[in-house]
Amino acid sequence: MNSTIILKGNILYTPNPSALVSIQQGYVIAVDGVVVHCGESIPTVYTEYDVVDYGDNLIIPGFVDTHAHAPQYCNRGLGMDKELLPWLETYTFPEEAKFIDPDYARLVYGAFVHDLWRNGTTRSILFGTIHKDSTLVLMELLQKAGLSAYVGKVNMDRNSPEFLIEETNQSLADTKVWLDASAQFGPLVKPIITPRFVPSCTSELMTGLAKLAKEYDVPVQSHLSENHGEIDWVASLHPESSNYTDVYYEHHLMGTVPTVMAHCIHLSDVEMDRMAETQTMVSHCPYSNVNLSSGIAPIRKLIERNIPIGLGSDISGGHIVSMAKVLTEAIGLSKMKWAEVDPNYAPLTLSEAFYMATKGGGQFFGHVGSFEKGYELDALIIDDTSLFDLNERSLEERLERWLYVGDDRHIIERYVAGRVVPSPKG
Amino acid sequence: MNSTIILKGNILYTPNPSALVSIQQGYVIAVDGVVVHCGESIPTVYTEYDVVDYGDNLIIPGFVDTHAHAPQYCNRGLGMDKELLPWLETYTFPEEAKFIDPDYARLVYGAFVHDLWRNGTTRSILFGTIHKDSTLVLMELLQKAGLSAYVGKVNMDRNSPEFLIEETNQSLADTKVWLDASAQFGPLVKPIITPRFVPSCTSELMTGLAKLAKEYDVPVQSHLSENHGEIDWVASLHPESSNYTDVYYEHHLMGTVPTVMAHCIHLSDVEMDRMAETQTMVSHCPYSNVNLSSGIAPIRKLIERNIPIGLGSDISGGHIVSMAKVLTEAIGLSKMKWAEVDPNYAPLTLSEAFYMATKGGGQFFGHVGSFEKGYELDALIIDDTSLFDLNERSLEERLERWLYVGDDRHIIERYVAGRVVPSPKG
Repeated sequence: MNSTIILKGNILYTPNPSALVSIQQGYVIAVDGVVVHCGESIPTVYTEYDVVDYGDNLIIPGFVDTHAHAPQYCNRGLGMDKELLPWLETYTFPEEAKFIDPDYARLVYGAFVHDLWRNGTTRSILFGTIHKDSTLVLMELLQKAGLSAYVGKVNMDRNSPEFLIEETNQSLADTKVWLDASAQFGPLVKPIITPRFVPSCTSELMTGLAKLAKEYDVPVQSHLSENHGEIDWVASLHPESSNYTDVYYEHHLMGTVPTVMAHCIHLSDVEMDRMAETQTMVSHCPYSNVNLSSGIAPIRKLIERNIPIGLGSDISGGHIVSMAKVLTEAIGLSKMKWAEVDPNYAPLTLSEAFYMATKGGGQFFGHVGSFEKGYELDALIIDDTSLFDLNERSLEERLERWLYVGDDRHIIERYVAGRVVPSPKG
Repeated sequence: MNSTIILKGNILYTPNPSALVSIQQGYVIAVDGVVVHCGESIPTVYTEYDVVDYGDNLIIPGFVDTHAHAPQYCNRGLGMDKELLPWLETYTFPEEAKFIDPDYARLVYGAFVHDLWRNGTTRSILFGTIHKDSTLVLMELLQKAGLSAYVGKVNMDRNSPEFLIEETNQSLADTKVWLDASAQFGPLVKPIITPRFVPSCTSELMTGLAKLAKEYDVPVQSHLSENHGEIDWVASLHPESSNYTDVYYEHHLMGTVPTVMAHCIHLSDVEMDRMAETQTMVSHCPYSNVNLSSGIAPIRKLIERNIPIGLGSDISGGHIVSMAKVLTEAIGLSKMKWAEVDPNYAPLTLSEAFYMATKGGGQFFGHVGSFEKGYELDALIIDDTSLFDLNERSLEERLERWLYVGDDRHIIERYVAGRVVPSPKG
């Protein structure tokens, strides 16, 4: 194609966690969806192209949600008085069972995809259900919407309600069929191997899924160390492993292909070392960890060990789709860890949390989440003029304020890989 | 006047913290702004009156914000990387100084009052600044808007920037002039004596303010035990008092007239006993306590001691005006206290937090925050149909979901003391 676009406005992004770069009235230029320049002026070679001038608006990278359960969308904001395991039994499993019907899936997934779009989540890593056809519906809707995602057909063959349990070989066979069918989607929508979590997957299933991940060169997502009851359960199911993390590791679900693990709240030092060694990404889901009373993840320790970290909405353990709100909640929780638990856990800075919600999670997709050269151009245009203020503010302050008090009403345009993404509702 | 109104819809309210009452297609009836009946049918004596039928919408009490700084409205969502004392110096004091100009005040207060209206805060307890004229402007705007509030001219005569410090006698004289001028406002907008906090008020000022409170029969608001640096400061300023709480008590700012104290995070048991004995209300401000890294207030302990508790947005230590969001944050913080600090602090239930945001804070205004007989009819009509769901939900679930994921777009009508309140922007 060789299409060149030039966006002009007030640009903000984080090339690294401690650097919030801001460019007043700057330009970001992309060719074929990939950034070739971001700076204060237009290099001579691009001066012939039209400029899309966003005036005094902010231009920021699109948000990356590294963990959400699309089929739980109808349950968001419900059952907030429960911990993980009873919450799964009461709200989650009965809802997920309905996705045996692809027509039901199409309605819910359509609403969910629209909400991703509305909130500026340009990339996401999603759980579907065990149902391959419904999972393909979700992928189709994302592709049609122009949003990018990794989407997983869930696998579970033990310790689950009868209506959600798979026979091991059938689970693997369905996964293969689904992986083959996923090839129909473009580069923006891709499959991810998705064992639900250790308690609901036999060793045989985990081993088979690891083989498929390698064979198809597909990444892996799952849950790790969210809740004390869950951790004890895993220990009793796998006495042969020295910890929860190593159950995944010993089944080759970490360290072979890229892997992202949601939560990671109660990891031991040894487990953190394993995460670092395998460069397994942590999807930190602050709202979910609060709602289900799971605890506060040791984010500062994970950062110090150089473990990759993204942020997740965890719909519907988390209730908020907006990654702007998820990132401010991550900052808040880190402050409470510092104030109430241990002053060695320095709170997250705005820059660190913004990085996690953009480039931090974006690295799972390749070069995503920044305006540096070589990065796919995912961007949000933010018009914050309706946020009343009588003072002059810096771009950093305007970003901070929008993240804290703004909402979807201020996002006036979304770009994914260099293309404007219109509302999926038309 | 003798005006009778009858509202019909799905009614939810909390007569006590453990009882979330719901009435499907019920009626709430008010005469002259005061509830005379709330139930499943209309008593015969009222059958002649027109019914305002809100269909399947929810009808809930209006929200009560027991602590907010109106002049800090422009600063919301800024400086979130600072603790209390540096945050006051950098952001708060310079902004408050501008309110020497009543025209500046009128612009900011107008925007703030509109935001209260937008978010369904029908009653609030507000700090102004030291400037009596601007404080009267805030009262005038609230009165015109039809919202109810206690509003305080702030007093500070030590340890403050030169541009915000008052001479003690002038501070008291101004307060008297302002109290007299406040008589022009109706029953919905009333003055409240407002020493900023101990570090910025001399003993002489505190004693004089306590006398004025008694003379004019006006309640008192201030801050208490928010931050360790602040607490140490108070201890060094008042070695004669055994604790921070007793500085107020010994100056007759607690236990004489009704008093509300914001924060109360780090109270000792003895201080909690004093709060209980004097029935001083705690204004719990969860977002502010997170943003300024102050810590998690021991709400369960305060409840167990029968201390009255309301919730506060604490604009702009807190960034969120919506009390629906403040109450869900209060629940979340209480879960983190339980999970990370001490399992004896049982998390707040939805019912308890909703009570705090309505009747709990409302008791400061008299009979406010409930649909029980004798309560002033403050109500919000919530149309949650745009919150996508394919399942039938109970009224309690619909309320929970709206509180967690809804926003001002779903509030389609507000009532204060039996009257519809139109947008202050017209």
